[in-house]
Amino acid sequence: MDQLNQQIQFVLELDKLKGVLRQTLITDGSRQENSAEHSWHLAMMAIALADHAQQPIQVDRVIKMVLLHDVVEIDAGDTFCYDTEANLDKAEREQQAANRLFGLLPQDQAEMLHAYWQEFEAQETADAQFAAALDRLQPFLHNIHTQGHTWKQHGISKAQVLKRMQPVKTFTPALWPVVEDGIQVAIAQGWITS
Amino acid sequence: MDQLNQQIQFVLELDKLKGVLRQTLITDGSRQENSAEHSWHLAMMAIALADHAQQPIQVDRVIKMVLLHDVVEIDAGDTFCYDTEANLDKAEREQQAANRLFGLLPQDQAEMLHAYWQEFEAQETADAQFAAALDRLQPFLHNIHTQGHTWKQHGISKAQVLKRMQPVKTFTPALWPVVEDGIQVAIAQGWITS
Repeated sequence: MDQLNQQIQFVLELDKLKGVLRQTLITDGSRQENSAEHSWHLAMMAIALADHAQQPIQVDRVIKMVLLHDVVEIDAGDTFCYDTEANLDKAEREQQAANRLFGLLPQDQAEMLHAYWQEFEAQETADAQFAAALDRLQPFLHNIHTQGHTWKQHGISKAQVLKRMQPVKTFTPALWPVVEDGIQVAIAQGWITS
Repeated sequence: MDQLNQQIQFVLELDKLKGVLRQTLITDGSRQENSAEHSWHLAMMAIALADHAQQPIQVDRVIKMVLLHDVVEIDAGDTFCYDTEANLDKAEREQQAANRLFGLLPQDQAEMLHAYWQEFEAQETADAQFAAALDRLQPFLHNIHTQGHTWKQHGISKAQVLKRMQPVKTFTPALWPVVEDGIQVAIAQGWITS
């Protein structure tokens, strides 16, 4: 029962990710997306888009990685990708969060989840690289379908978007046409500066 | 590109699940939970609680099942489990929704997702039974941590809760103590009628 208690405490703690808000809006534009539903969306994208990975991937590992990649935000918050200052100590804040949150679980599970999270962060394996590409593509699609909401709000340029979307180009070139088309629309509509 | 277009349309359509509200509140009591974040929570529970399945399971199959089990609600809505009338035509509404939504994908993927969903609905395999138990346990935990919100709102009795939680008792008896303890609290606090 001790082990079960630890697991239930972890499950209850996870609920807090539903309250961590991202810069991205959901596509009907009605509200900000939270990191729990974002993670679900990425997992479904992994299933739907698995064929487009450049290197062989194990989709079940990718799914686990995207499901837990943002859990650290329960303690560390969502760091906006274009916020240079907040990104300076992001790694340290998230490392502490991973220790506490995954540490709620029995040790073997804590180590497994921590390892998946570190693999995602390092972006060195094919699975982590595919996961990273999805994590960039999803908010891009949301921006396109909310009239460039986040880009306009922060005055983001084409160069900044291209840099941010680099993992899609590198790790999933088959998905790059989606980004290229989107950027053309965003420039034509004035949602990003050229 | 045609295939990719279909997949991207499916991915965009999925976003609507974030707007399907459940009766359950998130545990800080601030708002109703939506079906996308609920599905994420179940997938994380599958990882955290896999050891407690009564029969051998393939956790990766369970994860896929819980990720997509509520996608049909995009068309069919969330049917409250204690609403007898709405549950009469639930199966038909959801079948039509599955045809349309999974049908957005290329045929091989549509068939795969449809098969997972049907397996979840049938509750005949060990994987689907474990998934069903999680799907009952999660809102139960939320009710316990929101002072019995949904139970009080609808005047739910202990007998109704016990019936609803039967899959946990049958498929994951190792998790049943969590439910038993919760029901004791709920009765002591007057959240459910005895």
